[in-house]
This record gives sequence, C-alpha cells and structure tokens, in this order.
Amino acid sequence: MQTNAKKIYDLVNAEAVYTAKSDLRQYLTGFQSSFGYVISDKNGNTFYTDTRYLEAAEKQLKNTDVAIKVLERGQTAYDLLSGYKQVAVPVAKTYAPEYVRLKEMGIEIVDSLPAFTQAMAIKSEEEIASIKAACEITDKAFIAFLGTLKEGVSENEAAAELEYLMRKFGASGTSFETIMAFGENGSVPHHETGNRKLKYGDPVLIDFGCKVNGYCSDCTRTLLFGDKPENSDFKKAYNAVLSAHFAAKEKITDNITGKQADAFARDELKNYGLDKYFTHSLGHGIGINVHEFPRLSPASDDILQNGMVFSDEPGVYFAGKFGIRIEDTVTLEGGKVISLTNSDKKLIIL
Amino acid sequence: MQTNAKKIYDLVNAEAVYTAKSDLRQYLTGFQSSFGYVISDKNGNTFYTDTRYLEAAEKQLKNTDVAIKVLERGQTAYDLLSGYKQVAVPVAKTYAPEYVRLKEMGIEIVDSLPAFTQAMAIKSEEEIASIKAACEITDKAFIAFLGTLKEGVSENEAAAELEYLMRKFGASGTSFETIMAFGENGSVPHHETGNRKLKYGDPVLIDFGCKVNGYCSDCTRTLLFGDKPENSDFKKAYNAVLSAHFAAKEKITDNITGKQADAFARDELKNYGLDKYFTHSLGHGIGINVHEFPRLSPASDDILQNGMVFSDEPGVYFAGKFGIRIEDTVTLEGGKVISLTNSDKKLIIL
Repeated sequence: MQTNAKKIYDLVNAEAVYTAKSDLRQYLTGFQSSFGYVISDKNGNTFYTDTRYLEAAEKQLKNTDVAIKVLERGQTAYDLLSGYKQVAVPVAKTYAPEYVRLKEMGIEIVDSLPAFTQAMAIKSEEEIASIKAACEITDKAFIAFLGTLKEGVSENEAAAELEYLMRKFGASGTSFETIMAFGENGSVPHHETGNRKLKYGDPVLIDFGCKVNGYCSDCTRTLLFGDKPENSDFKKAYNAVLSAHFAAKEKITDNITGKQADAFARDELKNYGLDKYFTHSLGHGIGINVHEFPRLSPASDDILQNGMVFSDEPGVYFAGKFGIRIEDTVTLEGGKVISLTNSDKKLIIL
Repeated sequence: MQTNAKKIYDLVNAEAVYTAKSDLRQYLTGFQSSFGYVISDKNGNTFYTDTRYLEAAEKQLKNTDVAIKVLERGQTAYDLLSGYKQVAVPVAKTYAPEYVRLKEMGIEIVDSLPAFTQAMAIKSEEEIASIKAACEITDKAFIAFLGTLKEGVSENEAAAELEYLMRKFGASGTSFETIMAFGENGSVPHHETGNRKLKYGDPVLIDFGCKVNGYCSDCTRTLLFGDKPENSDFKKAYNAVLSAHFAAKEKITDNITGKQADAFARDELKNYGLDKYFTHSLGHGIGINVHEFPRLSPASDDILQNGMVFSDEPGVYFAGKFGIRIEDTVTLEGGKVISLTNSDKKLIIL
C-alpha cells in the first residue's frame, strides 16, 4: 500500500525528505508515535524508531511502502543523514539546533513544509471518513449530553459527562480541552472550564471535539438552560450569529480566499450591528491537528479548495454577560460547503 | 505576587528573556493559553496576547508581577524585540525561522533553556500540591474503575470509564492518551488502546494519568482479570517487576545520576533473569509536561535532587504474550522517595 510518504517525497523534489515532527510523521505513515524519524529517498521510505514502538509499528506498517528500522543505541538523525547532500525538513517546525547542525554538516536544506501544508489540506476519502466518524460521535454525544444537564452541576462535571459520551461512542479522546462555559463565562472565547455551577436561565457555551483514527472534529453549540425575560438580548444575538454562520455556509465556495470567507459572516453580523463583538476569526483547517491550514480570517490569503475541511464558527462576546458561538466542522465538495457536524443549531432552550 | 517570570529572568542573566512556547509560558505566568509571548527585562514582565485571551488573562494575572498587553494587528514578536541587543530564548525549543531572524536582526542570542530545565525540575510546594492532587484523583479513579471492569468490555470502553472517573473527581483532563491493554496487547509498551475485548484470565495493563492546575500525574498498574493456570509465568514476572519497582524506590536518593537510579531496578530484574525484557528506561520527570527533566535511564547523567518529581516504572514485555509495568509518580524529599500515587501494587486478581 502506498502511504503519504511517497506523495510528499514526489512533491518535495529533494535528495531526501527527513521528518521528526509527530503530526507530520503520522501523516506520512499513518502510525501514531511520540518518537521516530521518517526518511524518504530514491530507494524508498523508512521509519526509524526505538524498541518501544517496534511491535506496534510492525503491525501497522505491514504491507505498506514504509520499512521499519530500529535505531541503534546512540544513533542519531545526524548519523542517518550524513550521507546526503540535500535534505528537506519542515523548516518552520524544525528546532534551531537541528537546523544549525544540518547546515554545519554541509547539507543543503530544502523546506518540505509547503508540500505538507498543500497535501494535508486536501483530505483523501479515507481522511474525510475519519473526520466524519469523529463528527458523528460529536453529534451523538451532544444529544445524549443534553439529557444529563441539571441545575447545580459544575462546568467540570458537565465536561466530564460530555467527554465520557464521546469516548463511549468510539472516540480515542478529545481533540482539545473541552470548553464548557456557564452564564457570564461564555464571554471569554477561550474560557478555562471550572467550578461555576449551572443556574436556571444560564446560557451554556460548549466547544468540544474528539478524535477518530488520529483525526479531529470541532463543534460549538450555545443554548439556554431555562428561559427568563433577561434573555431577550441573548436571543437577538443568537439569531444574528446563526445568520452569520449560515451566510458563510451558503456563500463559501472553492477558489476564494480565507479573507473573503471570513467577510461573509462578518458582513452579516454588521447587518445586526454586532460585528465589533466578533473578536476572532471565522475558522481554521481541521485534520490531524485541530488547527491547521487554511485560515479563514480578515488577514488570510489562503485559497479555499474542494477537499478541505475547516470550521465555520462566528461568535459574539459581551464581557461579564454572555458569549455565543455556533460552529460546525465542514468540508468543501464541488464548490459547496457540506456540514460534517449536524446537531441542531436552532436555539435550544432546555 | 511574584511569578516564575522573575525567577527565570534572574537565573538567565540576559538583557531580555523572550518565551513563546506554551508550556514554558505557563510556567512563567501560571496562565494556560495556546498563544502569546512573555518578555522580561529590567523593567518587569509582560504577557503579550490577543483579544481571545484578554479577559481570562486579566482575571488570572491580577495582583501578579506580570503586566498584560494586547498585540496590535500585525504586530509580531520581532517588533517587540527589535530594541534589544541581547535576548534569551529556549534555543532547543525555538523554531529555526525565529532563531535565524533574530540573528539577522543583530540580536545576540542567549539560551534560556538550562534555566527553565533547572527551575522547572525542582518543584515548589504549590507545584507539588497540584501534582499530588492529580495523583490522588488518579488513585481514587483507579479504585472506582476496578468495580466497573466486566468480561466483554473493549479497551476503548474501559479507558472511557477510567477517564470519566478522573474527570468526575476533579481532573481537567488526561495527561496523555490512556493506554488500556488487554491480554497480549500489554506486550506493546505503547499499545494504542483499541477494540480488543476483555476475556476471563486476561492480564490488564493500564497506563494513565490526569491534570490538575495544568500539572500531570502518571501511573501504571497491571492486574489479572480472573485467574487461570497459564498465568504462573505472569505471576513470577509480576513479582520480579514489583521487586524492581521497590528496589528503585528504596535505593534512590538525592545527588545520584539517572543512570544509577535506573540500575537499581535493572539490577534487581537481573536477579530474576528478566533484565533483557526491560526494554525502556526507569523513569522521567513529571510536571507541566508528562515527560520532562530528569531522565532515569542507562545513559542519563542527570542528577536527581530533592524537590524533583519523576516516575518509577520498570516493566517487562513478552511479545505476543503479556507485558507488566508498575509505575508510581514519586518525589524526592530529604533524600527519600515519597510516592504520590498510592493505589495498591500487590497483584490484584479480580
């Protein structure tokens, strides 16, 4: 079976491609590990590892075009690379000492990162299937979770419940630390889930996601735990954010920039006079990493293309009061946005 | 309140100390974020962030010696550093483009990483308290978890249950992906938790940990889910590993090397003829990161000191059969090892 190692080697056009970064290694081989090197050259691809990963790697890389070698005691990447005149590394993800050392060895350094960024942004069918599976678990867990919310529960307890459900439904773990924000805590876009207890009438903002086969989902829902008259501002703002979320979904197409995509949502919020409360960008690519290429932001020239997976997540934040964010993981197919997370986005009042 | 930012600045002895790496930033300020810079100079410490983290940072850094500034649109770390002649960065954790750029700006680079490594390895009382809290949750969750293990459950389901219990008991999340290995899967030291179902008589290896206040615990237990005559080899090996675990605990003291510490366990396993199955090192430092300084390995010259927190985790692995690892998170106090994880290590047969 051909892995992405060959694909990247062909794209990069250097004598050897050397990768030590774990997310990129996972992309190259499909094998997840905390340590190892992948080196590709005209003779093929090799995964260098230590004994800890040997048995697992042998199991997973059988019948692929990646050979496995165990590093000898004291053997370093420099020993493996000393025979090459030209080596490609992901420069912006390579630590300074390694970069300096390779230069000192007289090796010409080529940057492999543009090839990774390009290749990883366009997902294969298999990758989309993994992200879709993660998104389906995310949806299923959210619905089951709603039934468990009770007055007096803490943010931490509620997050524990939601994460448990994702895990139980088949996720290998969360794709990031769950943000569970009750009431005024929702106004902090990256609120640290804590001990605030749920009260009747509270808005609840939940930003959560999980992993399947090493691929992430990312979803945010905001709802009301009971209603009260003071929530009329919340409801107005909710409609505006939802409208911005859908505006982006309807208008985003392939071959536009991240800046244009971001503007679809931002302009819609402007119609409601709320654009100044939209203090972050519209979205980011999602894959092995929960934040990757492309960026959908007011400053992004990244070009959106079919096969990409990214988030559509407009939000508004009113310090000390509440915050609202509505986020789906989506993919672009035939110039159209297809949502991979699909739990209800109409305002839920429990 | 004085943060570690001042401590590192005093240790480093450079005109300015600049830190962009998230774990080191967390150490400097106590504030967890995915983005930001900390710059310390003779005028004090500043945390540069964006609007996403502003409200949360203001809440947490109030009454500390760290000021907060929001980056202006387009403002980069280079803009902030251009006035300095000498800047300290954690060289081995600094990406090549940043290192090269600072050099090109004519800035003399000093390495701050030795100061971080030294300071972070010796835990403060507050840090020990956080790790201890994480360890207590780990213990409590393990005991509660044992009552839930049932024939036919999958590794993933069992891991979900254990992680839920840690979260429910107050952890903010896991400190790494839980390893839940049933039967022969235990022979892979870094087994990826999967769909193998639990059978009567299976050995069960569980490597797990959680986070409190951003600090990690790390614990491994191996037990038998029911007994059968074929388990006699397992039981012999279990006693050997337990003996090696205790040998290390009893003999490790301050001012010895990681190599000497590792040898206490390795030599004990040699007495049982099992040292060749101990295919990894004895332990690693634990703190904000689940793997940090010092290393306890056959090649480590790191000096163990009072106040350090690390793992004691000998193990033996028999490919295709079973694996055994017994791990506690421990600290050195007054030259003695004190265990922070304390659930039972006598062989449990459920």
